[in-house]
Parts: sequence; C-alpha cells; structure tokens
Amino acid sequence: MVQRNKLIGINSSKIIDFSVNYGPFRFPRKFLKDIKINGETIANYPKPNSEETTSLLAKYLGIEKENTLISNGSSELFFLIPKIFKFKKTVLLEPTFWEYGEALRRNNLKVDSFILESKDNFKFDRDKFIRAIQNADCAYICNPNNPTSTLIERDILISLISQFKDKIFVVDETYLLFLKNYNKLTLNDLSTKVNNLIVISSLSKIFSIGGIRLGFCVSSRKNISLIKKNMNPYSVNVFAQKLLPNLIKAKGYLSETKNFVAKEKLRVYENLTKINGIKTFEPKANFIIFKIINQRVAPDELFNYLNKALIKVREGNIFPALSDRFVRFSIKTRRENDLLLKKLKIFFQKKRYDK
Amino acid sequence: MVQRNKLIGINSSKIIDFSVNYGPFRFPRKFLKDIKINGETIANYPKPNSEETTSLLAKYLGIEKENTLISNGSSELFFLIPKIFKFKKTVLLEPTFWEYGEALRRNNLKVDSFILESKDNFKFDRDKFIRAIQNADCAYICNPNNPTSTLIERDILISLISQFKDKIFVVDETYLLFLKNYNKLTLNDLSTKVNNLIVISSLSKIFSIGGIRLGFCVSSRKNISLIKKNMNPYSVNVFAQKLLPNLIKAKGYLSETKNFVAKEKLRVYENLTKINGIKTFEPKANFIIFKIINQRVAPDELFNYLNKALIKVREGNIFPALSDRFVRFSIKTRRENDLLLKKLKIFFQKKRYDK
Repeated sequence: MVQRNKLIGINSSKIIDFSVNYGPFRFPRKFLKDIKINGETIANYPKPNSEETTSLLAKYLGIEKENTLISNGSSELFFLIPKIFKFKKTVLLEPTFWEYGEALRRNNLKVDSFILESKDNFKFDRDKFIRAIQNADCAYICNPNNPTSTLIERDILISLISQFKDKIFVVDETYLLFLKNYNKLTLNDLSTKVNNLIVISSLSKIFSIGGIRLGFCVSSRKNISLIKKNMNPYSVNVFAQKLLPNLIKAKGYLSETKNFVAKEKLRVYENLTKINGIKTFEPKANFIIFKIINQRVAPDELFNYLNKALIKVREGNIFPALSDRFVRFSIKTRRENDLLLKKLKIFFQKKRYDK
Repeated sequence: MVQRNKLIGINSSKIIDFSVNYGPFRFPRKFLKDIKINGETIANYPKPNSEETTSLLAKYLGIEKENTLISNGSSELFFLIPKIFKFKKTVLLEPTFWEYGEALRRNNLKVDSFILESKDNFKFDRDKFIRAIQNADCAYICNPNNPTSTLIERDILISLISQFKDKIFVVDETYLLFLKNYNKLTLNDLSTKVNNLIVISSLSKIFSIGGIRLGFCVSSRKNISLIKKNMNPYSVNVFAQKLLPNLIKAKGYLSETKNFVAKEKLRVYENLTKINGIKTFEPKANFIIFKIINQRVAPDELFNYLNKALIKVREGNIFPALSDRFVRFSIKTRRENDLLLKKLKIFFQKKRYDK
C-alpha cells in the first residue's frame, strides 16, 4: 500500500484550492512515467472508439465490454444523452451540477426542478419524488449529489428504477467513486440489466485528472450501442486512452485516497459543527457544504476574507436553487483542512461579537 | 530555418505508413518539451472554451477572436454542425472523407452525392454543381479534396458562395494548410464576413499530431457564437490547449514541411506517371491517388505485395464512390517515397508480362 506521506498534496501554488472537488492528493508520477508527449506518441491517432481501453475498463468493473463506453470527460455524455433520447420532460434533482440542466435545456427539453430543501438537510423525499416523476419520462440524479454531499440509498433508487420502467434514470456516480464500498453501492451492475438506467461517471475527480478528459458510462447493451453510434469518432485523445490502464493499476493511490477522505471528512465535519454562525450538513461525498446562518455576515465578507488568506472555496450562488449563503469545499490534506477550519473559526468567532 | 536533416521521419516502426495523410516529418521534440504529463499538469482543468488559445489562434490567422473557435479535433465540428444547422439537403462532393456523410446521415439529413468522376480527373464542374445545388441548402467541400488531391480554385468557390447566399458552404481546408500560399488560398478571410461559409481545419495532418485532437473553425461572428453555444464545455483537453502556442512557434518545421512536400510530390508524381499499368492523378495536396488500370492486376494482389514489403497505403474501397482499384498514399521522406516507387515499379513491370 502506498504510504500517505508519499502522496503529494494536489495544491501546488500558494493558493489552496478547496473549490474543485478533487481528492487531496495528486495522481502519482510513477503511473504517468510511461505516458510521454513527444513527436512519435502525439502522431498516434487514438482508437476511434477506445476499443482496447473499453475492454480493460469493463474487466475492471466486472461487466461485459458491450455494457460500457469511454468518453471525452463525462461532459461529452451529459450533452450527448439528451440529444439521443430526446426526453420530453426531465425531473432534475437540484441544487446540482449545472451541466445536466444546461445540456437538457440546450435541446429545448422541458426540465422540472425537484428541489432538495436545505431545511430538510437536502434529504431526498421518495414519495414527493414519485409524485414529481409521474408526468416525466426521465430523472437526472447525481449520487452522491454535488454540491449537497447527500446520498440516496441504493435500495431506494433500485425500487424507483424498477417501479418506473418507462422512465429513464440518468445517474451520475462521479463522487460514489470516493466511497470505500463503491462496489456495493454502484448501480453499474443493475445498469447492465435494464434499459431505463444510464450510469455516468467522471474519472477526473477521484484521480485528480480533469486536464485529460476521461469519463465512462454503464448501461444496457442496447443503450450503449445507441450512445456509441451517436458519439464522435476519436473524441477521446490518445493520452487519455493510454492513461486508463494506469489508473486501474494505481490501487494504492485509490485506496489511500478513499481511506483518508472517509476519516478526514468526519473529522473536518465534527470540527465544523463546533463553529458558531454556520449550519453544517453531514457529508457523504468528498466535499462538505455549510450555510452561513449568522445574519450579520454578508457572504462576500467571508469570501473576501478567505481570498486574502489565499483560500479558494466554491460559492453557493453558482448553483441554481442555492443561495450565496452556502459554501462548498472539498477535503484536502490535514494541514490544509486545519488551516481552513482555523480561518473559519476566527472569522465566525469575530463575527459573533461584531456590532 | 530548421534544416531538413534535423527533422525526423514520421514513421518509427518497421512498417512504413503512407496511409495516414500526415506530412513526412514528426513534430519536433523541442516544441513539446514544456508540455509534460505529470500529477500537477494533468490536474489542471482545460479552459472551458479554450479562451486564451482561441485569441492566440485568431492573432495568428489575422482575424478577430470572435470569428474562430478551437475544437476537439475537426471531427467534433463535422458532427456538431449538422446538428445545429439542420440542413434539409446537402450536396456532398464525393469521393471524400467519410466523416461528412456519416455526420449528415446520422442526423437523418438528406445527402446528394455530387460525384467527381475519375474519367474527368476528378475535376470540379462548376455548371454541373450549380444545377446540383439549386434544391439544396448546403454544400460540403473538402479543398484540396481527400482522397482525390484535387483543388477547386478560390475564385470559383468565392463566386459560388456569393451567388448562393441562402446556402451554407462547409469547406474543409485541412490539406490547404500544406500549401505554400495557404494565406492567399484560404477562405478564412471571406468566412469572417459572410454567414453562409464555415471553414473547418484539422491541425492533425499538417503538424502530425492526430493523438491530441485539435481543430479549428472560422466563420462569421454569428455562426461562431452559435456553434460555441452548442459545443460541449471542456471538450478540448488541457494538453491540446498548451500545444497550440507551440504549433504557432514551429515556423521552421511548418515551412520545411511545405517546401519539401511541394517539391517532393511533383518528383514522386513524375516518377509514378512512368509506371505502366496505373493512371496517376496530378496531386494538389500532400498525397497522391492512382488507379490500377492493368486489368490483369487484382487490387488485393498489389495490397498483399505492399503489405509483405511492410508498406501501408490507403485502399480506395474505404471511400464511398471509389472502387478498390484506387490507391492513395501520402508523401513521406525521399528515401521512403523511393522505396514505394521502386516496389510499385517492380510489381507493375512484372505484371506487364504476366500471362
């Protein structure tokens, strides 16, 4: 197993970036050594449909290669799927990652927001959802959800998918990859067996590799074949295709990331709950959301204060259905998390007695 | 100026590949030195719409940044444009690169083949084209055309584009980049001024960099803005964005490639015309097409013979509207071209007296 002290923090500049939902560590150099950009390697066209890479991924996931495909980031899939399936009306669980809504609306498809309320701790209400989906033909669910860091239980999702066979569930499991029991929680296995489930995952976040563009999809043979037919040839670059086998080899990095994040997020969460003036939501993914409830604090004050401390977090107002009083940050190294906690503590301590 | 002897041939393995339409030389190492795939660089997300890179390209092309965009290879554009513009009926000059027709048909758009006949040396007939385009709303033109290596004169294209303002001309100038007078021949300048012209260029071929996926488009502000709105965010990977400035810097490589190809293709063409049993077509691009006219030769015989000699060429039957009696090959180094010429000479010499 890779020792934690051998892993290098993801933040390399003076600014500590908690705003991107990466794990705490850089992808290790040793798994990138054989991928070189030179005149010879750059001249190799990628495989048009990432054939070999897809077979490797399928083997890794324990499914058939006809049930999966590799994409130019998960974005390619988010924008392609509404074009192919032409959903008449989609239920979109919000607040969530902006790309789903953007991709649906670009195709003039009707989108019904299903709001996860902060007053209910963003909890998913099964009965309310059943009423919402009656007149829709699709649901977009990010699980765990970004930015709320909430998780819908696997059993609930399975029962919904079984109950509504005529409605397609698009489930983004990008952050499920951070969970230690991913193999038990993922819907990939079910997805190979039914036609109304499409599971999409970005590999950018768990491996901290957003630059190279790599995502994948798991679904029925029928759906995968349909999506493949509509994908652009050569959309995945040759270096991304070369990288995938090495991601699979990086077992120590993956387990260390999962183990560290699992413990550290609870530690950070507990410390955060002790800060007066904020409401903290229990994190299921590798990031935490909190709300500024001290009404004397204008959100910009906090963001300016953190900026001055060279700390970057995600401001809530970039998410539709979320106000600027929400703050999201991802779990970084212990030292970095401690710095953020310290700064937040000082800020809210001071504010407590302001005016 | 970079000396030719400093440039390295594109073929690195035992097999000499004349089948990909690359230039003869690898992209030089010195312009790739600062692009490293490591844990830090791979973590950098690309700019969502390649903002800075687009500005650089625009400056290089001498146009405004609002008139151009960068894509995940030219393929992304070939497949996206029919989705956006929804042409009712497109005139497609054939034989040509398969992606145009595939992209149009995928969207269930009607495609009328406008055949360039080998008996007319694949010459473009302006009057015949005018009759063909009357009932269409779009024309796809690859100029110079792949695989015929023919060029439609700039004046003819300009007059057609001016005459048919209600029809969109999609012109692929990937191989025009190989011509010494590219700046005088390109329609990029006109494209910025009219709404019925979209010029697309792949950078893969001229720089031998098909692995990284990099293409661009030039059109009116209105068209570019519309295409950008429909492109996927983050479709161009961070390494492609880093590479573009270095492509622009590689002036010696570019001019050496152009100068060498300009001379060498004529030398190869002249030698080819001396071989009995084939008909050779004058090349305008960096590749040559010929037809096996010796009726005693079955195309497979030739391809097997070349395969045994570790020579790979492009077989004509992969192009709709072209038979398997056609062979396309690209100009490589002098030594490699001489080997191909020698092999062809021996093969057809022997065949001349067979039976």
